[in-house]
Amino acid sequence: MKTDIEIAQETVLRPISDIAAALGLSEEDYEPFGWDKAKLSDELLQKLHDKPDGKIILVTSINPTPAGEGKSTVTVGLGQAMNQIGKKAITALREPSLGPVMGMKGGAAGGGYAQVLPMEDINTHFTGDIHAITSANNVLAALIDNHIHQGNALNLDPRRIEWKRVMDVNDRALRQIVIGLGGPKKGIPREDSFQITVASEIMAVLCLATSLQDLKQRLAKIVIGYTYDEQVVTVGDLKVEGALAMLLKDAIKPNLVQTIENTPAIIHGGPFANIAHGCNSIMATKTAAKLADYVITEAGFGADLGAEKFLDIKARIGEFEPDAVVIVATVRALKMHGGAALETLQTENIAALEKGMENLKKHMETIEQFGLPYVIAINKFPCDTKKETDFIASWCEANGAKTALCEVFAKGGAGGIDLAEKVIKQANSPTKQFQPVYDMNDDLETKMCKIAKQVYGADGIELSPKAKQQLAFYEKQGWGNLGICMAKTQYSLSDNPKLLGRPKGFTISIRELRPSIGAGFIVALTGDVMTMPGLPKKPAAMRMDVKDDGRIVGLF
Amino acid sequence: MKTDIEIAQETVLRPISDIAAALGLSEEDYEPFGWDKAKLSDELLQKLHDKPDGKIILVTSINPTPAGEGKSTVTVGLGQAMNQIGKKAITALREPSLGPVMGMKGGAAGGGYAQVLPMEDINTHFTGDIHAITSANNVLAALIDNHIHQGNALNLDPRRIEWKRVMDVNDRALRQIVIGLGGPKKGIPREDSFQITVASEIMAVLCLATSLQDLKQRLAKIVIGYTYDEQVVTVGDLKVEGALAMLLKDAIKPNLVQTIENTPAIIHGGPFANIAHGCNSIMATKTAAKLADYVITEAGFGADLGAEKFLDIKARIGEFEPDAVVIVATVRALKMHGGAALETLQTENIAALEKGMENLKKHMETIEQFGLPYVIAINKFPCDTKKETDFIASWCEANGAKTALCEVFAKGGAGGIDLAEKVIKQANSPTKQFQPVYDMNDDLETKMCKIAKQVYGADGIELSPKAKQQLAFYEKQGWGNLGICMAKTQYSLSDNPKLLGRPKGFTISIRELRPSIGAGFIVALTGDVMTMPGLPKKPAAMRMDVKDDGRIVGLF
Repeated sequence: MKTDIEIAQETVLRPISDIAAALGLSEEDYEPFGWDKAKLSDELLQKLHDKPDGKIILVTSINPTPAGEGKSTVTVGLGQAMNQIGKKAITALREPSLGPVMGMKGGAAGGGYAQVLPMEDINTHFTGDIHAITSANNVLAALIDNHIHQGNALNLDPRRIEWKRVMDVNDRALRQIVIGLGGPKKGIPREDSFQITVASEIMAVLCLATSLQDLKQRLAKIVIGYTYDEQVVTVGDLKVEGALAMLLKDAIKPNLVQTIENTPAIIHGGPFANIAHGCNSIMATKTAAKLADYVITEAGFGADLGAEKFLDIKARIGEFEPDAVVIVATVRALKMHGGAALETLQTENIAALEKGMENLKKHMETIEQFGLPYVIAINKFPCDTKKETDFIASWCEANGAKTALCEVFAKGGAGGIDLAEKVIKQANSPTKQFQPVYDMNDDLETKMCKIAKQVYGADGIELSPKAKQQLAFYEKQGWGNLGICMAKTQYSLSDNPKLLGRPKGFTISIRELRPSIGAGFIVALTGDVMTMPGLPKKPAAMRMDVKDDGRIVGLF
Repeated sequence: MKTDIEIAQETVLRPISDIAAALGLSEEDYEPFGWDKAKLSDELLQKLHDKPDGKIILVTSINPTPAGEGKSTVTVGLGQAMNQIGKKAITALREPSLGPVMGMKGGAAGGGYAQVLPMEDINTHFTGDIHAITSANNVLAALIDNHIHQGNALNLDPRRIEWKRVMDVNDRALRQIVIGLGGPKKGIPREDSFQITVASEIMAVLCLATSLQDLKQRLAKIVIGYTYDEQVVTVGDLKVEGALAMLLKDAIKPNLVQTIENTPAIIHGGPFANIAHGCNSIMATKTAAKLADYVITEAGFGADLGAEKFLDIKARIGEFEPDAVVIVATVRALKMHGGAALETLQTENIAALEKGMENLKKHMETIEQFGLPYVIAINKFPCDTKKETDFIASWCEANGAKTALCEVFAKGGAGGIDLAEKVIKQANSPTKQFQPVYDMNDDLETKMCKIAKQVYGADGIELSPKAKQQLAFYEKQGWGNLGICMAKTQYSLSDNPKLLGRPKGFTISIRELRPSIGAGFIVALTGDVMTMPGLPKKPAAMRMDVKDDGRIVGLF
């Protein structure tokens, strides 16, 4: 079979102006970026305020494994399928980060015959949004250290700076550093660390803002650190929220592209779901809902991470409710959850599959707790046997769940018709009774505890001494009524990446908290999770190239 | 008078497609970026290969002072003026770096009625070229530290890494840092430092490459460090030049915009002239020369920095010769060179002006040494008296130089007609006999010495012990036949920023050398010059804002 990039490069793209026109947009509503990408006006949502909203379909999955689960592929393919059966549907995805693209993962724009295009651009710089966030984040960091250097009128304690520099690169050597060495011309020495850009609070703020004005207000609330007497210091105190908003004025505009079948896709915002809140922007999702009858959007990693945050954070701030959920599962990944090794996945193994179903079961229960109807998408890989996919289907049926075999990777939208029809039925069912996991009035510890117990299946949480201190301090600041963004490994329901399947009898260790007051949540770092990834032994970058005619190769 | 941004925002821009069409370009030759910016195809230069070249006019200046000299303004205004008198002329500038924009300088896209637009975009993220360079630079840095961490097959000595991370931010706290702290999961500890992006060798490579293929070849030659037994290790050894070129495939395409009078401008590449080679890209200049009869391009800071590098590095690699030079001078800056204080510049002061002329005189001599005809542009400020501007004009005439009063800031192209006519006359004079300062076969020390003596007026150079060692090592590597890129303060002809006017009896201290083998030169750091600037006490960022309708204020 052809590689993703080969399939992508064989596709004839329609001019983005045609895609925009088909959505009823005029030239006032967007700006072109090349002939095949566009930025939608940030005022479009306001302009379409009185239009009824389309249905919102959330795509999530079981816990991912190195075998791959193909959630983006299903999301893209489902959008294609809906258009094939005559529905007006838009796929709404996150923007890929260059970190994993150059590291392990290669591209992140779907795969096979279910891709968003131009995948080369989407997987690299795209329309520059992530770079703008890096830039705003690091301008703020420089302004903070400069403020201290130039007399420190705000009395900032260099040992208590919360704001971190970022890079959209997997760079483990920046996880723990010392800056400001070398004497008076080179700043004030202090410990520091870099995060990957997608973990920046500015990324979260951009994704959760409902307008440019809201963005600026959220930026002003960002906590940059504390004074020597432990008073909170914000971006507003530094008076630079205007400059930061200026740097983000284009990044806040959702990006319009197309799928391999020339159906519309909106790609905007890219927080990871393990170390951040894992959803594309509220403005993108809501704008898409105004422009289409169905919005298919994904949240990162498994339902324990992306979906929980989509439902507890994004939907609440955005004041909308998803109408149905798709849970993506694969034979290969379920077999790994059932104990099969990566090398053996080509072989039929019903025993491992049956055991692995417990991982899917937990995510089904989670979505049921949220009160949402769902469909299991069995995302087919070439080596899956009919016996295996049939097993999943009948197991699900026995457990009261609808399933659909999804072959969009190999067949495009045509491979997702059954899934599309079942999802449409669920989305229009009157049984929905949406219910977030926690109440905003719960205190922070209760919120973390509810997520750990109800979503992860843990016995409870265990706070480190540092986290306990922080918790007390945060409650005292009046931050108790904010949301919680758990930072946890994606590989396990627990905080130990090695516990696959459905672990039991574990607690979640809360190592450290970080305030994201502009975003409106407290980040809870669990286990060993780190907010700056590293590169693998053979980085994907080593196989990438650009030919003399500008054609890219080696980007999967 | 209105501010620059007010004037800019009152201008009605023509669609960039009209600007492109007026240059004879079809939709194959460019891609739009918004309605008012475009990227020209990197293959355009090859396609236009057989077209005759237009004349190239280099705009340079006296040593800048805090009083401002307005070189970009004159460059833009001269392009506007040439179009007003019926010449097909393109202004070709560098892209502003966000560092100084957020720091001291505010915008860098001309001023008054001689600006390139949209100035808000050009001064911030523009078409993302500088972000792409930051990204490629830092991906390389992460790949290097990851290579060491993952077993170090290339035997790289962590104490001898040449490659530095960059940010497009003025951030003094990153001038000297320690990375890789915190144990085995966080890399290998080593000393490091960040540079500003415009000082990245990748910026130089992008600006000096003549095609995408040439770019990739130059990237492969970049020296990243040395082994424990002092063997050179390059990007090619790491096998990632393809990935880096992929990240730069759009950044290499010159950007098309327009001036305030809707005349064409190409803005591409942005190395500073103090710490880097200070010229826009060869591809931009050469493409502009194919599309117009006159290309007006600037080189950064005074003729001792930007013009020297334009003539010794860029013109040589690009295989072209400029046809005439404009030296920008102002009454205010010349008075400062003559000893007047910044606060007194509003007052007529012929004595200081007369004394300050010696700074201009040196730059005139420098351009004469290069064998190029020139015109002095007296860039008028409102407080200049007629007696003062007349003084400069008659002094220049007595010294054999042509002058023109330039009022483009206040009057747009109409204020530069006299300058345009004189420049055209010089550019078409048959007296040109272009002669670089050094021969490529001179050894490195001789090259530095020639620049110091002939361009700065120094008695010679003094190498630090470290620089001496490096020089011997570089000559041994066969790098002796490369060019020299002096990193020197812009404020003085010497390496001491406080020595204004025309200092005599000084030597240039060469503190340290850095190899830029991909770019094709050795960087010589002189005096105290640093490759990462800092922010001032009141950063320009503090006055910037974006209104709810997306309009930017406070960006000058």
